[in-house]
Amino acid sequence: MATSLSGKAAAHDDLTKPTRGLDVRIGRIPIRHLSPIEAEGRWSAKAYVGEVVPFAATIFREGHDSLGARLHLTRPGGATSIHQMHSGAAGTDRWHADARIDEIGEWSWKVEAYSDDWATWLHNAEIKIPAGIDVELMFAMAVTLVRRSGSAKIYAEAAAAFADTSLSPAARMAVALDPRLVKAIAAKPISSLSTMSETVSLRVERELAGFGNWYEFFPRSEGAKRAKDGAWVSGTFRTAAKRIPAVAEMGFNVLYLPPIHPIGTSFRKGPNNTLVAGPGDPGSPWAIGSADGGHDAIHPDLGTVKDFSYFLGVVKKNGIEVALDLALQCSPDHPWVTAHPEWFTTLPDGTIAYAENPPKKYQDIYPVNFDNDPEGIYAEVLRVVRYWISLGVTIFRVDNPHTKPLQFWEWLLAEIATDRPDVIFLAEAFTRPAMMQSLAAAGFQQSYSYFTWRNTKLELETYLTEISHETSATFRPNFFVNTPDILTEYLQFGGLPAYKIRAAIAATGSPLWGMYAGYELIENVARPGAEENIDNEKFEYKLRDWAKAERSGATLAPYVRRLNEIRAQHPSLAQLRNTEVHWSDDDSIIVYSKVLAQQFSPTGTSDGIIVVANLDPHSVRETTVHLDLEKLGLAPASQFTVTDLITDQVFTWGSDNYVRLDAFTEPVHILRIDYPKGS
Amino acid sequence: MATSLSGKAAAHDDLTKPTRGLDVRIGRIPIRHLSPIEAEGRWSAKAYVGEVVPFAATIFREGHDSLGARLHLTRPGGATSIHQMHSGAAGTDRWHADARIDEIGEWSWKVEAYSDDWATWLHNAEIKIPAGIDVELMFAMAVTLVRRSGSAKIYAEAAAAFADTSLSPAARMAVALDPRLVKAIAAKPISSLSTMSETVSLRVERELAGFGNWYEFFPRSEGAKRAKDGAWVSGTFRTAAKRIPAVAEMGFNVLYLPPIHPIGTSFRKGPNNTLVAGPGDPGSPWAIGSADGGHDAIHPDLGTVKDFSYFLGVVKKNGIEVALDLALQCSPDHPWVTAHPEWFTTLPDGTIAYAENPPKKYQDIYPVNFDNDPEGIYAEVLRVVRYWISLGVTIFRVDNPHTKPLQFWEWLLAEIATDRPDVIFLAEAFTRPAMMQSLAAAGFQQSYSYFTWRNTKLELETYLTEISHETSATFRPNFFVNTPDILTEYLQFGGLPAYKIRAAIAATGSPLWGMYAGYELIENVARPGAEENIDNEKFEYKLRDWAKAERSGATLAPYVRRLNEIRAQHPSLAQLRNTEVHWSDDDSIIVYSKVLAQQFSPTGTSDGIIVVANLDPHSVRETTVHLDLEKLGLAPASQFTVTDLITDQVFTWGSDNYVRLDAFTEPVHILRIDYPKGS
Repeated sequence: MATSLSGKAAAHDDLTKPTRGLDVRIGRIPIRHLSPIEAEGRWSAKAYVGEVVPFAATIFREGHDSLGARLHLTRPGGATSIHQMHSGAAGTDRWHADARIDEIGEWSWKVEAYSDDWATWLHNAEIKIPAGIDVELMFAMAVTLVRRSGSAKIYAEAAAAFADTSLSPAARMAVALDPRLVKAIAAKPISSLSTMSETVSLRVERELAGFGNWYEFFPRSEGAKRAKDGAWVSGTFRTAAKRIPAVAEMGFNVLYLPPIHPIGTSFRKGPNNTLVAGPGDPGSPWAIGSADGGHDAIHPDLGTVKDFSYFLGVVKKNGIEVALDLALQCSPDHPWVTAHPEWFTTLPDGTIAYAENPPKKYQDIYPVNFDNDPEGIYAEVLRVVRYWISLGVTIFRVDNPHTKPLQFWEWLLAEIATDRPDVIFLAEAFTRPAMMQSLAAAGFQQSYSYFTWRNTKLELETYLTEISHETSATFRPNFFVNTPDILTEYLQFGGLPAYKIRAAIAATGSPLWGMYAGYELIENVARPGAEENIDNEKFEYKLRDWAKAERSGATLAPYVRRLNEIRAQHPSLAQLRNTEVHWSDDDSIIVYSKVLAQQFSPTGTSDGIIVVANLDPHSVRETTVHLDLEKLGLAPASQFTVTDLITDQVFTWGSDNYVRLDAFTEPVHILRIDYPKGS
Repeated sequence: MATSLSGKAAAHDDLTKPTRGLDVRIGRIPIRHLSPIEAEGRWSAKAYVGEVVPFAATIFREGHDSLGARLHLTRPGGATSIHQMHSGAAGTDRWHADARIDEIGEWSWKVEAYSDDWATWLHNAEIKIPAGIDVELMFAMAVTLVRRSGSAKIYAEAAAAFADTSLSPAARMAVALDPRLVKAIAAKPISSLSTMSETVSLRVERELAGFGNWYEFFPRSEGAKRAKDGAWVSGTFRTAAKRIPAVAEMGFNVLYLPPIHPIGTSFRKGPNNTLVAGPGDPGSPWAIGSADGGHDAIHPDLGTVKDFSYFLGVVKKNGIEVALDLALQCSPDHPWVTAHPEWFTTLPDGTIAYAENPPKKYQDIYPVNFDNDPEGIYAEVLRVVRYWISLGVTIFRVDNPHTKPLQFWEWLLAEIATDRPDVIFLAEAFTRPAMMQSLAAAGFQQSYSYFTWRNTKLELETYLTEISHETSATFRPNFFVNTPDILTEYLQFGGLPAYKIRAAIAATGSPLWGMYAGYELIENVARPGAEENIDNEKFEYKLRDWAKAERSGATLAPYVRRLNEIRAQHPSLAQLRNTEVHWSDDDSIIVYSKVLAQQFSPTGTSDGIIVVANLDPHSVRETTVHLDLEKLGLAPASQFTVTDLITDQVFTWGSDNYVRLDAFTEPVHILRIDYPKGS
């Protein structure tokens, strides 16, 4: 590839001399718009281990001759693999190659384009030779071309046949289409004008960064009880540990704990967010810090460091990792307030500014100021995070990252990744797209998402397409179905069907999904006028009689367990970028699929799931579902069977299929495509 | 702005030390996605003199405090102007500033974002002070803030008033809203955390690169006549020069000539693209080269270099510039073929490859091969282009640039721009979007477009939006209504109304438009089965009796002249990026506007045009037009008058307006918005 076409004198004395050495910015065969890439090239695009990444580029050339393209993919250790690319939708000039990513670290890739001289010849020969046009000339060109491939027997024999005028033109043409020659040329194209793109990076994180099942509980509630005097006795890490096997049994592999630190007493909030707490009220875990310590301390009610380590051990034994909350805010009683007032904002009256959204005041919370002493507060947060990592914590759920400088997160997450690239940060940012997308691009491995507020068919179709195709270079949404802060109207008023529908879509629509304890018990009563549960666990202990719920069948736990089993058994659901929306004739029935092609599937055939969900939790609906068979990797007009993984029903399907979904029995089909062997 | 937050030791020995010096890639206040910018940052975005460029960036910050932003715009000479930016559509975090570009050369710009501390205070104070919350604290903060602005009298007085507890809170608050203080603070914001974006470049070309009226004629036809023996006598530069005043009278300022070089005789095409030419057939001007010379020669029938210079002189006197055709292909008789066979492709049988699209052969044309001897052919083309420039040519219409390497055009156009940035190249590339967009990004000042094939309302709405908002960073479409190669079905079957509709939309929908001679005579008969005129001028002389057409009124010339007058009088039509589509209830009536805001308008008020076109050339249509008044720079529920610039009718309009358009009289309203003084 020539990128410098003239390096000549800087002045020209006649009309032919270039005026200057000029580096052109495009190669001989233009290669543009590589993907996945972070839009500004400011940060790396990202992937996670196990992900099949759709690499693509826009490649085109002058005139009508053929071109080909290859992906050169380099692992962190430096080994490079080469993947043939194929052209995509007509008219787009997009070329594609999918590759499975299987190692943490900084990968890099580039695209090679070349003039596919054999394909050009073949295209012309297949028209001209049967028409008797330039027959000998075409075969002479074929001889020249195959000789460029070397002296191997297959080429020598082909050259001899092309040159053999005693054979009929048809017989000589047949040589060009001989599968052995076709295969040899496919493996080693007869090419020229090879052009390389720039090299771009791909940051690969571990599988749990992109594929995981989250569960949230408050450890103080698990095992909490009332003493004889009626006063609450907090649950502890020891009592909470007893709940872990049940969480594992449901198939979750991340357990997120709200802050476990000492809680301030100044302006402590009472039940239902009231301004005055009673003596027995435990306060919000997000009002961090007291005389017992701050962000590096454990609430005495929960236990000691030793108890926490015991808890981590039980968690680990159950195949789960703990996610700690990283909430960078302080109660007025936090040790930082006196030791480092410069980490807060001091007002002209000498007081420290509490959080407010005028006229609302949040006097139990002091926001951290990151600008007065950035070196100091940055180093302290780094110390805190490293401390918990040193105890065995590998995941952090970051509270409200959008209220701290983006620059700070970029710095902190890069610092941690330097020696602990396995540590995962989930951004709890419910804010506008620019900030949410930028937090992801700047380093967060996962993000809370708008999923809870996407309930209609059009909303979900748009959002599923956005997360899989538009923002997936850096943004990985975690589809939480609820949180202590979010109980949507859809859940409040949709009954059991709504809970099933939302869980099924979360578990199949995103490789990351999450649930806050109580969802499985259909806890759907909101504090009046609010979008969150009444008697909220943020401000009080919450007793749940899990055993009784199980006995009576009043729990979705078996359904949730089945969802997580399906996720474990179907690697297509572990992928972010493979969601495709299909059509149904009913405006409440959504249809989407996720397919993992045979070459990447561990089962020997493609792995594919079709989800058909009735989004109206109050109705029985019948409609016709129209599938884009090509997106399922199936031939046009295919007939195939699908198996409902919830009910075990088997249906014979094609491109157009009758569906009936009763919200009061099973509102969602999760259908396995039964691919025949070899497809 | 801190972009390096730690430059410390590379290893850490406790939990607080960063592991490495880390340069963060985002500033304190994130500034992202600057626009206009070439998507890959591979080349510069472009503008032309007189253009009002909409600069924008995505700017956001943590938390709820206010921010502000300024555009820093640097001229080629180095002088920088600063423009306050304003926030755009809610939720987008886009900030905008428009600026008029008035000088050729390489401009650069960057965006500054800052914490708008006064705006934050004002937002809180306007809620808290009337509610009696933290009143003295708020005024104490105000004192601190205005003191940061300096000791000027206005600030000192404000500080004193804020601190004056003898005044009522309302009176002290009124000081904050005093227009003089508001103005002073607007001019010099009370800010902190100032953050600069990266600097990006903007390549500015002359006005004609982006705003011009093109006319095409074949000089050999103008003044051609039959001798007494019936043989044709070619028109010459001297006879063709007589037609120039009429072209100028219609308001055109670029005259494009098909190739003026000697034409080959080998395999010369006859009338209507037949394979055998008669002795008197002049051949296609695109079959370049004969014993009389090649790309640097003039066809002897047209005259000499002296005649060409005379022609250029007449053109210039009429306020027109000539665009020469640059068609890099050769007839078999071209001098290059024998002198430089390496600039072509030699086949195994020793012949030179002619153009073909199997099974079609174009034996009258040898394509140039740019890969055998790039240094040689590149230098030769540079010499040819420089030769015509040396004779006074300033514009080239490049034939089929998409059949030559993109890299070649990038090199050639940059070479020419080095000392002749005034030279304009128009790309005649009717091909897929990737190549068309890349030719523009790599250097072409203008491009032929898909306009001729965008005829329905949805097609035109989509295309007008695309060219003004999506691709305008580098792509400038020239809306030719016809060419010797293109006579669309819409024109073939739409009669006079179709010709009016297409001319009106071309002239108002794009600042660049063009017409090939004969359009004004409604030449709408196609060669059967082809999308081009019968008895095509490419292959024969064409006599047009302009005088007779004028006498009988059988010409659109007055309509075309009026369109160009309107373009000259309305600077809003000289802009590419200001097109906005509005709504009508009829599926054949399109509505769009172009507005130039008052601050950029030479008339003292905004300049605005609304076009309402009935796209059905066979009907009378009535409908209601719904205008987005905000996009017109008008207040909600405004009433205003519009004046039809074709018929002089005046209408009183508002947001919803009845329209009746009779295709058989005037199918298109071109409405001037009569802005009141001061708006």
